[in-house]
This record gives sequence, C-alpha cells and structure tokens, in this order.
Amino acid sequence: MTAYCPAEIGMALAEVDTPSLILDLDVFERNLDLLGGSLAGKNVRVRPHAKSHKCPKIALAQMARGAVGVCCQKVSEAEAMVEGGVPDVLIANEVVGSLKLRRLAALAARARIAVCADDASNVGALDAAAREAGVRLDVLVEVNVGANRCGVEPGEPAAALAKRIAASGNLRFAGLQAYQGAAQHLRKVEERRAAIEQATARVKSSISAIERAGMKCGRVTGAGTGTYIFETVSGVYDEIQPGSYIFMDVDYSRNEWTESGIPRFEHSLFVWTTVMSRTAPERAVVDAGLKASSVDSGMPRVADREGAEYLKASDEHGVLALQPGARIAVGDKLKLIPGHCDPTVNLYDHYVCVRRGVVEDIWPITARGAVW
Amino acid sequence: MTAYCPAEIGMALAEVDTPSLILDLDVFERNLDLLGGSLAGKNVRVRPHAKSHKCPKIALAQMARGAVGVCCQKVSEAEAMVEGGVPDVLIANEVVGSLKLRRLAALAARARIAVCADDASNVGALDAAAREAGVRLDVLVEVNVGANRCGVEPGEPAAALAKRIAASGNLRFAGLQAYQGAAQHLRKVEERRAAIEQATARVKSSISAIERAGMKCGRVTGAGTGTYIFETVSGVYDEIQPGSYIFMDVDYSRNEWTESGIPRFEHSLFVWTTVMSRTAPERAVVDAGLKASSVDSGMPRVADREGAEYLKASDEHGVLALQPGARIAVGDKLKLIPGHCDPTVNLYDHYVCVRRGVVEDIWPITARGAVW
Repeated sequence: MTAYCPAEIGMALAEVDTPSLILDLDVFERNLDLLGGSLAGKNVRVRPHAKSHKCPKIALAQMARGAVGVCCQKVSEAEAMVEGGVPDVLIANEVVGSLKLRRLAALAARARIAVCADDASNVGALDAAAREAGVRLDVLVEVNVGANRCGVEPGEPAAALAKRIAASGNLRFAGLQAYQGAAQHLRKVEERRAAIEQATARVKSSISAIERAGMKCGRVTGAGTGTYIFETVSGVYDEIQPGSYIFMDVDYSRNEWTESGIPRFEHSLFVWTTVMSRTAPERAVVDAGLKASSVDSGMPRVADREGAEYLKASDEHGVLALQPGARIAVGDKLKLIPGHCDPTVNLYDHYVCVRRGVVEDIWPITARGAVW
Repeated sequence: MTAYCPAEIGMALAEVDTPSLILDLDVFERNLDLLGGSLAGKNVRVRPHAKSHKCPKIALAQMARGAVGVCCQKVSEAEAMVEGGVPDVLIANEVVGSLKLRRLAALAARARIAVCADDASNVGALDAAAREAGVRLDVLVEVNVGANRCGVEPGEPAAALAKRIAASGNLRFAGLQAYQGAAQHLRKVEERRAAIEQATARVKSSISAIERAGMKCGRVTGAGTGTYIFETVSGVYDEIQPGSYIFMDVDYSRNEWTESGIPRFEHSLFVWTTVMSRTAPERAVVDAGLKASSVDSGMPRVADREGAEYLKASDEHGVLALQPGARIAVGDKLKLIPGHCDPTVNLYDHYVCVRRGVVEDIWPITARGAVW
C-alpha cells in the first residue's frame, strides 16, 4: 500500500487528517540554533543521531548548521541516509550477520561509513566483508562506559580489541564509541554530571591502554541530549551524538536542566489527534492510541488544552481525563506531546511540517521501520 | 523507500535477516482450527478483528474457515482490507471528521461496510457523507458495556441514538457494538466471566429500550480472545470479534484459561532476532528493541532458549539476563514472543511465513501504519 499522506502543502493545520505527526518548524529551527549556541566556542564536532528522526531532510538541515554527518543504529537506517544525500554516517552500534555485513561494506563504497565493534569474532567478520567488497572500513571500539549494554570493558579489553582491528587488513581502528545511554534520563543535573564523569574516566583509561599498546586512539564519540555538555567539556570527547534535542518529548521534559549548561529545548513534535468520543463529563477519547504515540516511556501529554490529561492508551484510543468544565467536543483536534519521540516517529511515514498554522512542507520518514 | 523484505521464499529460517516478524504457519492454522472447534454447534458468527494482523491474506484465511468478514478500527485499515479482497468490514469504532467520512462513504460503494457511533452530531455527519456519496450506511450504536471508553450508556441513551440513526435518510440502524475491552486481560476466568455477565446485562437493557421505542435491534457484536466464549453463550451476542487468538502474545498468556471453554491458543508469532553483543557472562544483547517488539504490555519473552530472560528494551537493543552457563553467542538467532502482538505487527511490513524451518510465503502487512 502506498503510504497515505495526511496533509497537503498549503493546507491549514486544522484540516490535516489525524492521527498525524506534526513538526513545528519555528520551534524545530530554534532547537537547532539552541544546540549550536550552547556549543559556541567549544571544540567538539556534532554528529546528531538520526535514529530519532529517520529523515534525510532533517539530517541535511542539521548538517547545514554544522553537523559533520549523522549516527545511525542500523545498516538499513544508514542506507536511507546515504540514499537521501548524507555523505558521512557512523553506525554507532554493532552489526552482526553476513547479510548485514555485505550491505554495510557495499554502503562504504558509496559514502564515508564507520561502524562499532565489541567482539573479536565480529571484527574478523567485518574484515572479511570489507575485503570481499574491496573497501576499507573505519571501526570504533565500543566501550561500556556505565550503561551495561553493549561495549567491551574499559582499559585493556578496549586496547586488545583496538589492536585486533588495527591488525585487520581491511579495517582501520578509528576510535572509541562511548555512549552512556543510562545517564540521559537521570532526572537531576548532578546525577547526570556524575555519570558522565565516570564515563569520562573509563574513556581515559581506555585511551591510556591503547596508547600503551602503541596505537593512537582517533576520535572519541558519544553523548545524548541529556548530557552532551558534560562530554563536550570533558576534554576527551571529540564528537557528540545528541538526537532528541530537535523534538524533545515528555520523558526528556521530566529532566531538570537548570544550570546544566544545556538549553531548554522546546517541544517541536506533536501527534495531531481528533476527539472521537465524548460520552461522559469526565472523559473524552481521542483517535491516537499506542499505535500513534509510543507509550514505552509513559503517556503523551495534551499540549494545547487546559484541564485535559491523557490517562491511558489502548491500540487506537487515548482516554483523556477531563477536569470539570473542560471545553472539549467531538471533532476537536488537539496536539499531543509524545512520551518518547524516537519510537513515535517510527510509526509514521511523514512529518507534516507546519509554520504558524499552515503546512509548509511534507518530509518523508524514509528510515521508518528500518530495523535491520 | 521501498520496504526491505528480510526473507525470500524457500530460504531456511536460520538465514532470515533480523529483526523480522515470523509466523509459524502450522501453529497459526492450529489456532484457526481451535477457534472453530470451540464454537462447534454454537450459533454465533465470527468476525475477527483485523487490527491484530492488518493483513488481507490473513483475513481471507479466516474467511475460508467461516468468518463472515472482519472488523477494523480505522477507515484506512478498512480500505486496505477491501483492497485486498475482503468484501465485508465492520469499523468497530467511531469515525469522526469530514475527510474520513468521505472516504468511509466511498468505501461503502465498493464493499459491505458498517460503522459505529456514540454521538448524535456524528450521526448527522455520517448521514450527510452517505447522502453525498449516494450510499446507505449501516450504523451500529456503540454501548459502554463496562470499559468506560467509547460508547453511549446502556438503555435509553442507546435507544435514543438508535432512533436518531433510524431517522436518518441515508443510514440504517444495524445493531449494537458491545465490546468489553477492559475484560480481556483480567487474569482469572471468573473475573472475565463476571465482566461479560455485566456487559450482557447492559446489552439486554439496551435491546429492551430499543424495542420499547418500536425498533428492532439487529445484530449485537463484540468480544475478544479473552472472553469470546462467554459472549457466545450469553444469548444476546450474534457475532464475536476475537483478534489475538491467531497469534497469542505474552500478555494473553498470563491469563488463566482452565475451564473457561476457551482453548489454549499457542504462540504462532515471533520476533526473530540476532545476538549482537556478549561482553559479560550474565548478559547478552539482541538486535530487537522496542522498535521491533512493542513493550506497552511488558517485555517480550525468549521462546526457544533456556536460561535467558528479556530484561529491558531500548530503541534498538534488547538486554537478556542470562543464567550461569547459558550457551548464547554473538550471531545466534533467537525467537522472541512479543509482549503485545497488535502494536508489534504494526512495526513491520511483512510476515515471514515459516513451516518446519523453511520460508513458505511472505505476506505483506498492507495496513501497517494505517492509523487514519
């Protein structure tokens, strides 16, 4: 089925079909500027994470404001970015399996591609795939800097894997992937700062071990919207990977930001929804449920109406709890702020880009569903 | 971007790319038969809910075993079903907004379409859309039978809305939609039975009010996988709408089933995933996170390995907690049982249909993302 598009350019927002994904361009552009402003005079490259937006048009807008390229999590995401004109992609993740490695190596013939590894056998497979495709692949060692997910342990294990990469004929050891994912949503600024101090110590011990082994480390890359300023001033990170700053979501808005040095990014991304049922004074039901706004990190929030709280989601229904006197009728359209932007974006095929109430553009989400 | 297909017909399951959605055809067909067997000799029509599978091929398989058509939640889902050859669709939900109503009325010229309503102004809009398209639409009154979501209250309010429909020149009052969604996952059989007894009482009071107003009620439709046998024997339901029985998921498997009269449907739907990281004895990381298996109703479950529990999901990673000695290596492929099948299906473009380890067919999920 050809993806249905819920809007046309020039349409008033009020006419846009629901549920749909609305991007407020004024706010989005302010967020791009806020990131840039917060990094003024600081010596760090920006490589935003495209897993948040899955859209080459947004990647190119980020690059137009100075980003060096993007990160992706999957080969298929990277393919969509390269297809859309992005020349430089770091797959900030392990890639496992012969089919994926063939596609990765083929992509490296079309764009500047780097990938991460945390396993010696995988390094062997990466080398074989690169050799077969006649390319040389940049490979970063992913280090576990505290999230206890992927990544080798810091220090000697990182150096050992770096050595293995450097000794591979078709690979180039390109640095360290050091993302502390578990730190991003620690609510207090000091908790996040402390987590990144620990991560930085783990990076330093890894760099020392690598240098003791006679190698140069290359770039150190990591960081997210919740912590990036701490990595930026750490003295060891060369590159940051924030993703959600362009959109913000309810989960990130629960963080404290004061005196973090990270600006207050605003909500630019909304799920546009229609009130479809209003059969009790204390309740309204909207047409955006959990297939329209991912609830993995909590419910969406009603953005533009007082006295209405998004209480619970079923597949295609969202139940709003209304305070007495709330003026909400069947047919009204509301903006919801997604609980978590990344998986919400992954439910849609288009951003409906709106400026001051009018649809200015439609941006295809070409990496929607690109999980491979 | 053309949707990437992770498999080819004839391929061994072991070669299928990950993450992907695997349908075990032997189990799927057994589930179809189990439903039929549980209804033998009972006087009820089966109208499975297509929101679970979003795939006309599955709808037609259900109709080949006696289903009268399908339910959908959205006009766009219904369009995909009609496009795929399904001649009879009930939109078991309210449809609000002029654009959607135009599409609904246009669809009613191509197939047998019915829709629900719980609001008088919406009935007026349905009538106008049907008149404009030159069709006559079947409209059911949705009654709140206990879920406190959509639906008018039972009894007189239901009769008043039925009257309004019957008085509309281009609508036909076609019965009651009486789905008790909140009952489906009550864990104990007796809780579910009691909830459906209450729902049945609410239906009865609505039928009485409708008959007192001089109308005939038409069909009464509702029920889900967790309760359908209770509606079937209630004496008031004519039609049942189970969806998840074809797949089962972790959430439904937490229900008690003994002596319910509902058979133990088996898990036929899996997320096929690769181990991408194995850097600690107690942990493995797979490439299926919450963009590959919806976690709204809890984590997926590892289906085919002992000593491995899917502990937590991030966007593209799933962390498995391993018991000592668990034999899981980078590159291994595992089957996960989704926590909740409906929103997981909505993340994919294809079912990879497997029989005894070989890909037998690929079924497109043509209503994926059909939220309108």
